[in-house]
Amino acid sequence: MATVLGDPCATPELSVRQRVPPLLTDVYQFTMAYAYWRAGRHNQHAAFELFFRDNPFGGGFSLFAGLGDCLRFLRDFRFTDEDVEYLRTVLPSDTHPDFFLYLKGLDSSAVSVRAVAEGTVVFARVPLLEVSGPLAVVQLLETSLLCLVNYASLVCTNAARFRLAAGPRRRLMEMGLRRAQGPDGGLTASRYTYIGGFDLTSNALAGRLFGIPVAGTIAHSYVTSFSSLEEVWPQSLAPAKGGDPVEFVPLVKDWLGRVCELLGAQPQQVHEGELAAFLSYSIAYPSNFLPVIDSYSVSSSGLPCFCAVALALCDLQYQPLGVRLDSGDLCGQSLEVCNVFKQCNKHFSVPAFESLVIVGSNSVSEKSLSELNKKDNEIDVVGVGTHLVTCTSQPSLGCVYKLVEVGGRPRMKLTEDPEKSTLPGRKSIYRLLDPDGHPQMDLLCLSDEPAPKAGEPLNCHPLGQILSAVQSITPARVINLGLDVFRHGEIMLPLSTTSEIRVHAQRSIQSLHVHHKKLEQPESYNVAMSEKINSLVRDMRRGNS
Amino acid sequence: MATVLGDPCATPELSVRQRVPPLLTDVYQFTMAYAYWRAGRHNQHAAFELFFRDNPFGGGFSLFAGLGDCLRFLRDFRFTDEDVEYLRTVLPSDTHPDFFLYLKGLDSSAVSVRAVAEGTVVFARVPLLEVSGPLAVVQLLETSLLCLVNYASLVCTNAARFRLAAGPRRRLMEMGLRRAQGPDGGLTASRYTYIGGFDLTSNALAGRLFGIPVAGTIAHSYVTSFSSLEEVWPQSLAPAKGGDPVEFVPLVKDWLGRVCELLGAQPQQVHEGELAAFLSYSIAYPSNFLPVIDSYSVSSSGLPCFCAVALALCDLQYQPLGVRLDSGDLCGQSLEVCNVFKQCNKHFSVPAFESLVIVGSNSVSEKSLSELNKKDNEIDVVGVGTHLVTCTSQPSLGCVYKLVEVGGRPRMKLTEDPEKSTLPGRKSIYRLLDPDGHPQMDLLCLSDEPAPKAGEPLNCHPLGQILSAVQSITPARVINLGLDVFRHGEIMLPLSTTSEIRVHAQRSIQSLHVHHKKLEQPESYNVAMSEKINSLVRDMRRGNS
Repeated sequence: MATVLGDPCATPELSVRQRVPPLLTDVYQFTMAYAYWRAGRHNQHAAFELFFRDNPFGGGFSLFAGLGDCLRFLRDFRFTDEDVEYLRTVLPSDTHPDFFLYLKGLDSSAVSVRAVAEGTVVFARVPLLEVSGPLAVVQLLETSLLCLVNYASLVCTNAARFRLAAGPRRRLMEMGLRRAQGPDGGLTASRYTYIGGFDLTSNALAGRLFGIPVAGTIAHSYVTSFSSLEEVWPQSLAPAKGGDPVEFVPLVKDWLGRVCELLGAQPQQVHEGELAAFLSYSIAYPSNFLPVIDSYSVSSSGLPCFCAVALALCDLQYQPLGVRLDSGDLCGQSLEVCNVFKQCNKHFSVPAFESLVIVGSNSVSEKSLSELNKKDNEIDVVGVGTHLVTCTSQPSLGCVYKLVEVGGRPRMKLTEDPEKSTLPGRKSIYRLLDPDGHPQMDLLCLSDEPAPKAGEPLNCHPLGQILSAVQSITPARVINLGLDVFRHGEIMLPLSTTSEIRVHAQRSIQSLHVHHKKLEQPESYNVAMSEKINSLVRDMRRGNS
Repeated sequence: MATVLGDPCATPELSVRQRVPPLLTDVYQFTMAYAYWRAGRHNQHAAFELFFRDNPFGGGFSLFAGLGDCLRFLRDFRFTDEDVEYLRTVLPSDTHPDFFLYLKGLDSSAVSVRAVAEGTVVFARVPLLEVSGPLAVVQLLETSLLCLVNYASLVCTNAARFRLAAGPRRRLMEMGLRRAQGPDGGLTASRYTYIGGFDLTSNALAGRLFGIPVAGTIAHSYVTSFSSLEEVWPQSLAPAKGGDPVEFVPLVKDWLGRVCELLGAQPQQVHEGELAAFLSYSIAYPSNFLPVIDSYSVSSSGLPCFCAVALALCDLQYQPLGVRLDSGDLCGQSLEVCNVFKQCNKHFSVPAFESLVIVGSNSVSEKSLSELNKKDNEIDVVGVGTHLVTCTSQPSLGCVYKLVEVGGRPRMKLTEDPEKSTLPGRKSIYRLLDPDGHPQMDLLCLSDEPAPKAGEPLNCHPLGQILSAVQSITPARVINLGLDVFRHGEIMLPLSTTSEIRVHAQRSIQSLHVHHKKLEQPESYNVAMSEKINSLVRDMRRGNS
C-alpha cells in the first residue's frame, strides 16, 4: 500500500524504551527473599521455569514474545538507594538491617537464563524461560518477568490469529493506541502485533523506536473542521511533473458535476465542508490522498467528493491512493465504492482508479475479520484497534513461574488440583519434526539426558495424561529449543531487531501443520515428557502420598 | 488487616512516573496538522471534547481518572529534535521543510483545558475534558489524551464495581501486576484500582510512587522450596516480650501432635516441607505470619501446620495473622478453616485465634465476588488480579475526542449512524442534585448560557432522545462540574495525591442514588442538553440535510 510512510529499514532500532524498575514486583517477593536470607538459604542454587498452561483464545499455538525486554530488565537489575529506603519503611519492623545492605548489593551477575528464541511458536507447559541462580534473587525476578512475557506473548499471538483470519493477501494495520491499557500497553501492542504478522501501525513512537512501517492520513475531525470552500487555501496546485500551478478548486468543481451526473448523485447533497476538507488535504499532500469518506454520507457526499478530487489529481498526473471506510457495513460499502471506481475508470478513462485501495476499520474483531474474509468485498487494508490490543476475547495469558529445582534437588508442586501440578527438575526442550518438516511434538527431557536423535525411535509420555501409557515416536529431525541467553549478568547473544523477530515468527507459524493453525477447534499439539521425568514424577508423588 | 505493610501517609507521593512522549500518537495527527499548517489554519482556535458513549460493564456510572497524567503530559508537551528528524523520514516527501521547524517550536502554551475533577462519578456523553487552543496543536494531542484517560477510567470504574460487589466490610487487595497489559499497565492498574476503592496492592513500585498500602507474605514457591525440617535455620526464636530464645522446632512439633489429635488428622500426611516452610518464615517474621496453606492439601497438611506454628507463636506472645487460600472452593474452605480456628481456641484457649484473618484469592471476578458476598463464608480479605486489571468483561472504555468548535463556529459530526453524532459548541456542565443530595441529572449548556439556579425550574432535552420532547426539572442544588485546570502551558491547580483522589471518588460514589449504583440493570442516569443546544443541533441538522 502506498500510504506506508517511511521505510522500515531506514530507521535503526533504538533502545530508548523506558527501563523496567526492579521494584515493579510483588511485595511478597521481598518477604520471601528476607526469609531465605534469614535462614541462610538465599544463595542456594535454584531454578524456576516460566510457562503457560493453555494456549490463549482457544487456539492450538502461541507465539513467545518479550524475551528481549526480559533480558534488558535482567541486565539492569539493581535496586536504587531510594528503592531500598522505601522497602525499609514497608517491610516488618523486625527485618534485620543487614538485609537492606544485601538488597543494595544485588544484581543479576549470578543469574543464568535458558530460553526459547523470541518469536517461536510455543505450546502449553513448555518452559519458555528457565531462570537459575541464587534462590532469593531468582525469586525476586518472578513478577517482573511474568509481566514482561504475559502481555507481549498474548498480543503477539492475537495478532498472528488476526493474520490467519485475514488471509495472506490483505494488509493489516494496527491502530489501537487510544484504546490500549495505558501508554506502555499501546507501545507494546504496536511492537508485538507487528511481530505477530501485522504490516503497519498508526503509532508514531513505535515507528521511531522499532522501525515499524507507519501509516495514516486524516480523521473525521479533519473533515468536520471545514464548512465551506472559502476555507481552502492555497487554491491552486502545480502538476506533479512541474509547470505552472493550476486553479484546483474550479477543476474539482467541474469534475464533481460530471461525477454526480455519472453516478446519479444530487450535487446539493454533497457536503461542502467535506469537499473543502478533501480539497485542502489533497493540495497539501497531492501524493498521499486517502481520505475517510463516511463523515457524512458515503454515497451522496464522501464518495462523489473523493472521485472529483481524485480525478482532478489525475489530471495533474498525481496518483490518488484510495479511501477509508470507518463505519457501517464495510463489505457492502467496499463493493459499492469499487463499482464506482470502475464506472469512473470506464467513463473517464482513468487507469489510476484501478489501483485505488480501500481501507476498512470499524471495531474489527478476529471473528468479523474471518467473516469478512469469506464474504464478497474489496477491502485491501484492514485497520484493527480495540479487539487487537486489548485481546478482548482473552485479555491475559496466565504464564506462571514455578520452582523446579533447589540445592540440586528437583521440586514439584503437588496440589489437590492436578492441573496446577508442575514437572520437577531442570529440562531440555526438543522439538521433533515429521518428515515434511512440520513440528509434531515438543519433548521435555531432564537436562542431563542425551538428546533424542533423528531417525531413532524413543519412548515418551504425553502430558495431560499424567502417568499415561508410554508412546513411541521416531522424529525425522530434532531441534533443541533452549538457548543460553543470559549468564554472569550479560546478554549472551545479539538482541534481534523487531523486524528480525517478525521474520522468525512468521516462519515459525508457517512451519506448523495446518491442523494446528486452525483458529477454532484446532488439533491439539503433543507435548510429552521423557521416561526419566515420568519416573521422577512417579517417585516424587509416591514420596509425598 | 495487620498484613498491611507501611503507612500510606508516610510516603510522600513521588512524581517519578515516566514521561509520556508526544510522539506516542497516531501518524495521521501529523498529516492533518500539516494540512492545517499548509492551509494557514493551524492557529485557528478550536475546541475538542473528550467523552465516552456508554458506561462500561453494563453499569450505570463511571469514574473519571487519568486527569493528573493528562496535565503532566500537556505541561511537558514538546517534540525532541530526534522526534522531528524521525517525522521528516516518514511524512510524505513533499512536506514543506518549514513545517518541521514549526513542530520543533510547538508547546502547550496556547492550550486551555476545562475538566471534571479526577475521581468524580461521570456518565455517558458528558465531556470529561474540553481541550481548546490552536487547531493543529489540539489535534496532535488527541491520541495521547485518549490513551491516558481510557484505561485509567476503565480500571478505576472496574475497581469501584468490585468494591460494591464485595460489600463494605471486606477488604480488597489488588494483585494483578503479573497479568497486566505491560509494566505500565500494571502500575496504572495498581494506582487507579486503589482510587476506585481497593485497600491494598501487592505492587511495591505502586506503593513507593503513590503511597498505596502494600501487603504480601509468601507464595507457593516458598513452600515448595522446602523439603525437610533440617532446612529450618535458625531453629530458635526469642519471645516477643524478650527473654532467651526458645527451641522453636520441637515446640511446633509438639503442637502439631496435639493439633492432629484434636482435628483427627494423620501426622504422616502432614507435608514436612510445608511445615519447614511455615516454621522458617515464622522464625524470620514472627509478627507477620500469614502463609498460603494450599500448596499440598489444606485439610491434611496446610491447616494443621498453620495451627501448630501459630499456637507455638502464641506461646511466645506473638500474634499470628492468618492464612491465605489460593485455589478451590474459597467459601467452603474458609468455613472449614474458621471452624478449626474456633476448635483450637476452645480447646487450647488461644484468644489470638479469634482475630485471625482469612485471605482468599483464586481468579476472583466481579461475578464470583458478588456470589461470594451472598454465600456463607469467613473471607476477610479478597485478592483480585486478572479480572480486575485487564477488565475482562470489557477491556476498553472507548472514549472519543470530538471537534465541537473551530474559528468561533460550532461544529458537529452528522453521520448516518446517529449514535456517532456529536453535540456542537463549547459547553458548561452542571450536575443537578435532588433534595436528598443525590445527583439526578447532568445538564449540558452552551458556555455562554447562564447557569441553572437551585429552586428554579428549567427546561431541557434528555439525550438519547435527540429532538425529544422538552422536560422540566427543578434542581435542589446545582454544581458546576467544569474546572479550569490548564492554561498558558501551566497546570492551574495543585495536583491531588492518589489518596486525595480516592477520598473524592469514594464520596462521589456514595452520593449516587442506590438505583444508579446497581451492578446489573441499573436505572439509567439522565444527561440532558439545554434548549439552546437543542436549537443549535436542529439548525445544524437542517443546514446539512
